Amino acid sequence: MEDVYIGAGRALDPDKYFIVVVNQIGSGLSTSPHNAPLPFNGPRFPRVRIGDDVRAQHKLLTELFGIRSLQLVVGGSMGAQQTYEWAVRYPQMVKRAAPIAGTAQTTPHDRLFSETVIEAITSDPAWQQGWYQQPHAVQQGLRRHARLWGVTGFSTEALRLQKWQELGFSSLDDFVVGFLENYFLPMDPNDLITQAWKWQHADVSRHTGGDLAAALQRISAKVFVMPIDEDMFFPPRDCRREAELIPDAQFRPLKSLWGHLGLFGLEPSYSEQIDACLNELLSL
Amino acid sequence: MEDVYIGAGRALDPDKYFIVVVNQIGSGLSTSPHNAPLPFNGPRFPRVRIGDDVRAQHKLLTELFGIRSLQLVVGGSMGAQQTYEWAVRYPQMVKRAAPIAGTAQTTPHDRLFSETVIEAITSDPAWQQGWYQQPHAVQQGLRRHARLWGVTGFSTEALRLQKWQELGFSSLDDFVVGFLENYFLPMDPNDLITQAWKWQHADVSRHTGGDLAAALQRISAKVFVMPIDEDMFFPPRDCRREAELIPDAQFRPLKSLWGHLGLFGLEPSYSEQIDACLNELLSL
Repeated sequence: MEDVYIGAGRALDPDKYFIVVVNQIGSGLSTSPHNAPLPFNGPRFPRVRIGDDVRAQHKLLTELFGIRSLQLVVGGSMGAQQTYEWAVRYPQMVKRAAPIAGTAQTTPHDRLFSETVIEAITSDPAWQQGWYQQPHAVQQGLRRHARLWGVTGFSTEALRLQKWQELGFSSLDDFVVGFLENYFLPMDPNDLITQAWKWQHADVSRHTGGDLAAALQRISAKVFVMPIDEDMFFPPRDCRREAELIPDAQFRPLKSLWGHLGLFGLEPSYSEQIDACLNELLSL
Repeated sequence: MEDVYIGAGRALDPDKYFIVVVNQIGSGLSTSPHNAPLPFNGPRFPRVRIGDDVRAQHKLLTELFGIRSLQLVVGGSMGAQQTYEWAVRYPQMVKRAAPIAGTAQTTPHDRLFSETVIEAITSDPAWQQGWYQQPHAVQQGLRRHARLWGVTGFSTEALRLQKWQELGFSSLDDFVVGFLENYFLPMDPNDLITQAWKWQHADVSRHTGGDLAAALQRISAKVFVMPIDEDMFFPPRDCRREAELIPDAQFRPLKSLWGHLGLFGLEPSYSEQIDACLNELLSL
């Protein structure tokens, strides 16, 4: 995934910048239900929030690397939520921020969607309250979960135009199985639920007693708010509304017919837009 | 539901017109899996299509009532699909047509959505391949099915603005349970699946070997294509594209922040727009 965003000659150029890429808690690579030590493993894994991610990242940067200032915090989807959390929680440390295809406060629509993906997994009898024998045992729930991502993760236009053909899939069903089920099936059900719950509860206004405007006013970073124009989870108007609450933020929508999962960099024009925006932001 | 569209002084005025309101096959009121005589009951109920509805309606109108000409065919959602089917299948009989919030050909997005609502029901262990003891036994599947309607049935804006408060609900969860679960739970699972499958396979181009343009060219009715501007199932651009294939059709989007389920007439301005459009169409 980092190849979509980082590379020599790109805006995020590792020859030019010290780039730290972190996986979020519960992602399956970072500390997660499936790899946590006893007794905190599986469904006993604590409910973690975006703030927990960012506090852990802050410790990593300050204590391990001795970093005191960040030229740019950038991330997509839940990475955007972390970006907002960084800019609100540690305003003095973040010089620039680029939240891509995500919001600072989860909307009711996205809360309901994440509820349905959680239910898709937990309704599988093999789920057994999270004490399944093997992750793969919950495959029917995982497949249902994957299909729900297909309904909202891609734009109606992407599906109408059969853009799956560009990726080598022969039909909608082939695409849903070969792309979405293939992507989600190797994942651990408890890990996925940890992430979905975290998305569901993301809200920078936890710092200001529920006042979103007050939370976003705290930001001193230069911010480019970068929604994807066809995103059905984070429609540009939701992101624009938040951008208007951030001092001097610029609203920079990206074009991708794919919708939210355009984040995967499924077309060359996506990376070009990312580079153009981030180069401009980094030059400010 | 007919109260939203029909009444004295309204465009559809029963004092002025002979108005026939039909329920679709599988709806639970018309012939449906739960009330079909043996051996065609339950999951043995045949797969019916929009064309079967319209052929049955045609028989009703011509054989029972002796009607040879229709001043207007109008319907919302799957009713819009039937409206298109009427205008394509019996072009000489339909003088005017007003498909509201629906398409003549189901889009890949909607096909995938209807797949997920079918799976929500059939994945309930109580489903038992459709041979459940009582409809209510499948309540967990029915509740999941209801929640999926919440994600796409209402616009992201409606949920953001907490428009459920206008209907007397106190929270998103209260709304999902009190409105959506309450609406769908009394229904029969096989009935719902019959309808979902029918939606999924709606396609007037079955008359023309898959050529949608050729099918819509057959229409001789005056047509107002009336999507709902915030509809996430049938976005206006999908409806506009079809409108452009219909000779002399007019594109008349309706405003409703509710999105697709604005069809329920959840705000007074909706019925006003319906009347204005249909009055104009009926005057042509």
